[in-house]
Amino acid sequence: MSDSLVPETRVLAVASHVVYGNVGNTMAEFVMQSLGCDVAALNTVHFSNHTGYRQFKGTRATAQEITDLYEGLRQSNLTDFDMMLSGYAPSAAAVEAVGAIGIDLQTKAKSKPGSFFWVLDPVMGDQGRLYVNDDVVPAYKKMIHHADLILPNQFEAEVLSGIKITSLATLAEAITAIHRIYGVPHVIITSVQLFKLSQSGSTPSTPDNHLTVIGSTTRSDSSPRLFRIDVPALDCFFSGTGDMFAALMVARLREAIDAAGPDLRSTASWVSPDEVEPSSLPLAQATLKVLSSMHSVLERTMEARNAELAAAPLIENGDLTIEEQQKRDHLRRTKAAEVRLVRNARFLRDPLVQFSIQEWCKEDLPV
Amino acid sequence: MSDSLVPETRVLAVASHVVYGNVGNTMAEFVMQSLGCDVAALNTVHFSNHTGYRQFKGTRATAQEITDLYEGLRQSNLTDFDMMLSGYAPSAAAVEAVGAIGIDLQTKAKSKPGSFFWVLDPVMGDQGRLYVNDDVVPAYKKMIHHADLILPNQFEAEVLSGIKITSLATLAEAITAIHRIYGVPHVIITSVQLFKLSQSGSTPSTPDNHLTVIGSTTRSDSSPRLFRIDVPALDCFFSGTGDMFAALMVARLREAIDAAGPDLRSTASWVSPDEVEPSSLPLAQATLKVLSSMHSVLERTMEARNAELAAAPLIENGDLTIEEQQKRDHLRRTKAAEVRLVRNARFLRDPLVQFSIQEWCKEDLPV
Repeated sequence: MSDSLVPETRVLAVASHVVYGNVGNTMAEFVMQSLGCDVAALNTVHFSNHTGYRQFKGTRATAQEITDLYEGLRQSNLTDFDMMLSGYAPSAAAVEAVGAIGIDLQTKAKSKPGSFFWVLDPVMGDQGRLYVNDDVVPAYKKMIHHADLILPNQFEAEVLSGIKITSLATLAEAITAIHRIYGVPHVIITSVQLFKLSQSGSTPSTPDNHLTVIGSTTRSDSSPRLFRIDVPALDCFFSGTGDMFAALMVARLREAIDAAGPDLRSTASWVSPDEVEPSSLPLAQATLKVLSSMHSVLERTMEARNAELAAAPLIENGDLTIEEQQKRDHLRRTKAAEVRLVRNARFLRDPLVQFSIQEWCKEDLPV
Repeated sequence: MSDSLVPETRVLAVASHVVYGNVGNTMAEFVMQSLGCDVAALNTVHFSNHTGYRQFKGTRATAQEITDLYEGLRQSNLTDFDMMLSGYAPSAAAVEAVGAIGIDLQTKAKSKPGSFFWVLDPVMGDQGRLYVNDDVVPAYKKMIHHADLILPNQFEAEVLSGIKITSLATLAEAITAIHRIYGVPHVIITSVQLFKLSQSGSTPSTPDNHLTVIGSTTRSDSSPRLFRIDVPALDCFFSGTGDMFAALMVARLREAIDAAGPDLRSTASWVSPDEVEPSSLPLAQATLKVLSSMHSVLERTMEARNAELAAAPLIENGDLTIEEQQKRDHLRRTKAAEVRLVRNARFLRDPLVQFSIQEWCKEDLPV
């Protein structure tokens, strides 16, 4: 079919909702739908816009409200999900409520290995800083061993592994530790700026204007199978890219697992046999498509953003204080950087693959 | 572009949200996004599933919460909408809050005629029965004169016009009355079963297995320009078809207006010059595409539903009472009839037009 859709997949997506812009479930739902997934969106907050604007209005769902919505699905036999994607939840109790949903779905699927797969984005913070309450961290640590794939950023990987990532070697250690501590079979660290690490380790081969995505699917001895993909960094901050990555990953992983054949599809947690090399992992193949789609959409977003800012330059207004002017400018720039999702959906469906997967093993690493 | 997208359109969509299934904003958002519209979804309820299941869990937004979310957009300059689609709101106060949003957007657009267009679906009831509180009716009656296009079903058209629709002639009267009483320039009555009317009037030419959609754009003397499109009825009840119609209409009307040229685009309420015949109205052209898309999607939905019910027949369970069995069967049938939206998105984007527009004027009507 000319639609470029992935195999039919029913996804429960639990994350935040915003009226305007593209983050959380508002991003993830459309991304997965564009690729043909049936998405049930359970929204954990109802905000007017993302917090990067530095102001917003709206409400947070309580843990009870999250539990009730799921109970509503259960009582009407509407929980036949193939996958779950869980993202931001607004409190430790809400994180636990989301965890209980994942565990319930997993328990129901136990007699049919591979029939349910949970992708968990442990949203806790970024750039060395928690943006959730302290008690959210132990709540995640308690539930992550139930997940099949987790998608921490560099900071969240440090929090979960207890290892400070300062080099390629410590990065590999952090992933190894996450496999071991939580028994989670698939891990992707969604964005590492290796050039920033280069001061503390020796020569990473990435040019300094690239981002590196590192992933691994465990072997049966729980050792990692590490792969890495470098992508050019764009000179702009976009909100919602983590949600975009996670949503594309759900669809592309399902596609890659189906392509690998019925055996893998009915293997618990979709863990490839030990002889599969890192670069041949469905997780690596999926990541390649995900990053290719993202790069195309974000490149076009940056062009549109630059055009928007140029077309409507900030007009000095003598009636405003400097602070008010700065606020207006911040709002304008934040709005202009909203990901241009809908008009670029073709790049979600048909990625132009332009990057390559690199394998790496312990011997390659600087000490 | 091969994407079959309509011109760029920013839409504020205010309606209900369900986790599972396709009704309200959950339906409308994806439909409009598929056609390339940027949609800001402001959700008026957060339910687990639609009420056709006869059970659900979740919460309703208060009027204050609706107002707050919009205020959140305003304070960050995020209200640059070209169109608004308003649907279900859970109380008279909520309807008023939604009305205030539409009026605010319209007021802001006043200096640029045609730069904002409000499609209002006055969700009040169906099949001769109100399913909202009585006080919702006057709340709608007070705000409808602000809307540019309203989409009542037959029952809602009766409530708004005060005219009982029992024939083609009374149908024409009801539309004429709605134009006159509310000054609303575009009206579509989304589903009339003319064969049911045929007992009271004389020969409508529709075969008895068809639904008729009737629309009109007013002339400058506020007389109607009536058109009608008959489509084959499908032998199944689907929830969310009104929302699907409204969402497709937003996108297709915008497209048809753009195709008609810059003069119409900058005319208040996009009202075509008097010399434009009913069947050439952008509203009629848009309706044709809308119904063609819907018919393809619903045909495929019915096939999938029949296959789903056949594949999993209800198994007699001696432990259940007859009532419990009936409830299980109802849930199963309701789930099977959920509109298959995502996998059929190509029919949204590229409708196969297979119906035709008929004009009718007073002289054609039976008395």
